[in-house]
Amino acid sequence: MTDDRIYTAALIIIGNEILSGRTQDANLAYVANGLNKSGVRLAEVRVVPDIDTKIIKAVNELRIENDYVFTTGGIGPTHDDITSHSIAAAFGVKVIRHPDAEKLLRDHYGADINDSRLKMAEVPEGSDLIPNPVSRAPGFRITNVHVLAGVPRIMKAQFDGVCLQLDGGKPVKSRSLVAHLAESVMAEELGKIQERYPSSDVGSYPFMRAGKSGTAIVVRDIEQVTVDAVIEEVRTMMTGFGVEPEVEVQL
Amino acid sequence: MTDDRIYTAALIIIGNEILSGRTQDANLAYVANGLNKSGVRLAEVRVVPDIDTKIIKAVNELRIENDYVFTTGGIGPTHDDITSHSIAAAFGVKVIRHPDAEKLLRDHYGADINDSRLKMAEVPEGSDLIPNPVSRAPGFRITNVHVLAGVPRIMKAQFDGVCLQLDGGKPVKSRSLVAHLAESVMAEELGKIQERYPSSDVGSYPFMRAGKSGTAIVVRDIEQVTVDAVIEEVRTMMTGFGVEPEVEVQL
Repeated sequence: MTDDRIYTAALIIIGNEILSGRTQDANLAYVANGLNKSGVRLAEVRVVPDIDTKIIKAVNELRIENDYVFTTGGIGPTHDDITSHSIAAAFGVKVIRHPDAEKLLRDHYGADINDSRLKMAEVPEGSDLIPNPVSRAPGFRITNVHVLAGVPRIMKAQFDGVCLQLDGGKPVKSRSLVAHLAESVMAEELGKIQERYPSSDVGSYPFMRAGKSGTAIVVRDIEQVTVDAVIEEVRTMMTGFGVEPEVEVQL
Repeated sequence: MTDDRIYTAALIIIGNEILSGRTQDANLAYVANGLNKSGVRLAEVRVVPDIDTKIIKAVNELRIENDYVFTTGGIGPTHDDITSHSIAAAFGVKVIRHPDAEKLLRDHYGADINDSRLKMAEVPEGSDLIPNPVSRAPGFRITNVHVLAGVPRIMKAQFDGVCLQLDGGKPVKSRSLVAHLAESVMAEELGKIQERYPSSDVGSYPFMRAGKSGTAIVVRDIEQVTVDAVIEEVRTMMTGFGVEPEVEVQL
């Protein structure tokens, strides 16, 4: 389904390993790009530690403010995996052992099943399971909150499945131009272009790499014709400052 | 100064480019690691868009909950750089053109100074400047909120200067062991070790890379002797499961 309102999502990254600097998050950009394609904008991200009160607060604030919430991390078998219990507390429901999840885990582990492994079948009452094609132990969804693994390979597989089922608005289109020109040279003209196209998001991102500095201008809008019109104005402005812009390589 | 209480900080990453998935954040891990060395724990991170109400809400919540707040992004010369005005609104003070910042910019740009460049001298009234050795335009500090650039090279230079001046507690010590062993095998024993050492943070991080799966156990505590004792218990447990652990290469 596609309509004209803006759909938003929030991402909650749960894990001391991100906050300690030990692990570089690899999930944010993947979620952001996937949501874009589904016509959903990532409106906020929070990284919170493995502390139940912090998780509960973030979930309860963000699930009201957004159409969708995604969490990553903390659904494994060890003592520091507290996401299921925290989400249940946020919703004021109890934790149950989901029979389908238990069956999946018993089939997968066979004689090696143990209490720690069965902990991965515990979900808040009323949840639906989110399949995990990589290592079986499922994620879950309760109302608009989607609870995914933290390991990127598993998270991506789970997220791709969820993404296909999201209702969203029109996907955001974007184009960008790069010029070896300081943003402070273009700032005034760029502000005027933004004013003429209030529906668009005209972003200015200075960079320094390999000893050269410059600016990338990124234009985002749900209408491709508007993106194209704004990009042409940016191109004209840049050439007016004597610099031929390059088309940025899209990630 | 060093004492026994725990100092915390929050990081607010301001920028649509992170939320759109266009740009991979490169500042979080740097800030986390720098704070660790100063005896300050990164307690929460939020990524918010270039929308003043979102910035104001995050700043006002997090500056009360934490000893320090750091923000990155949105202090350049263009229309989408709204951090200074948002921080001023969060504190209920007006924006002024800081005379020292104006002098820095006029000296740096000479005859090329313009209104957009002078915008980078605008800070909330009562702020102190944070030097920018890379490109001159300064950051600023107001009470416990430190406002830094988003470009990693600039952010790091500003942050390194600020870090030297922070009061913190004892720096967190950490060691880790890696074994090609599923965390669900160790989970029960690991939970018992965590119970015996309540002051320590015993983290379990499963990984899959190059076709091999395993688990990294990370032990963090402010006392090195406690870290060492816990690591020896983890090592004994791993060898008890028939696997010789490897010392993880520290990042």
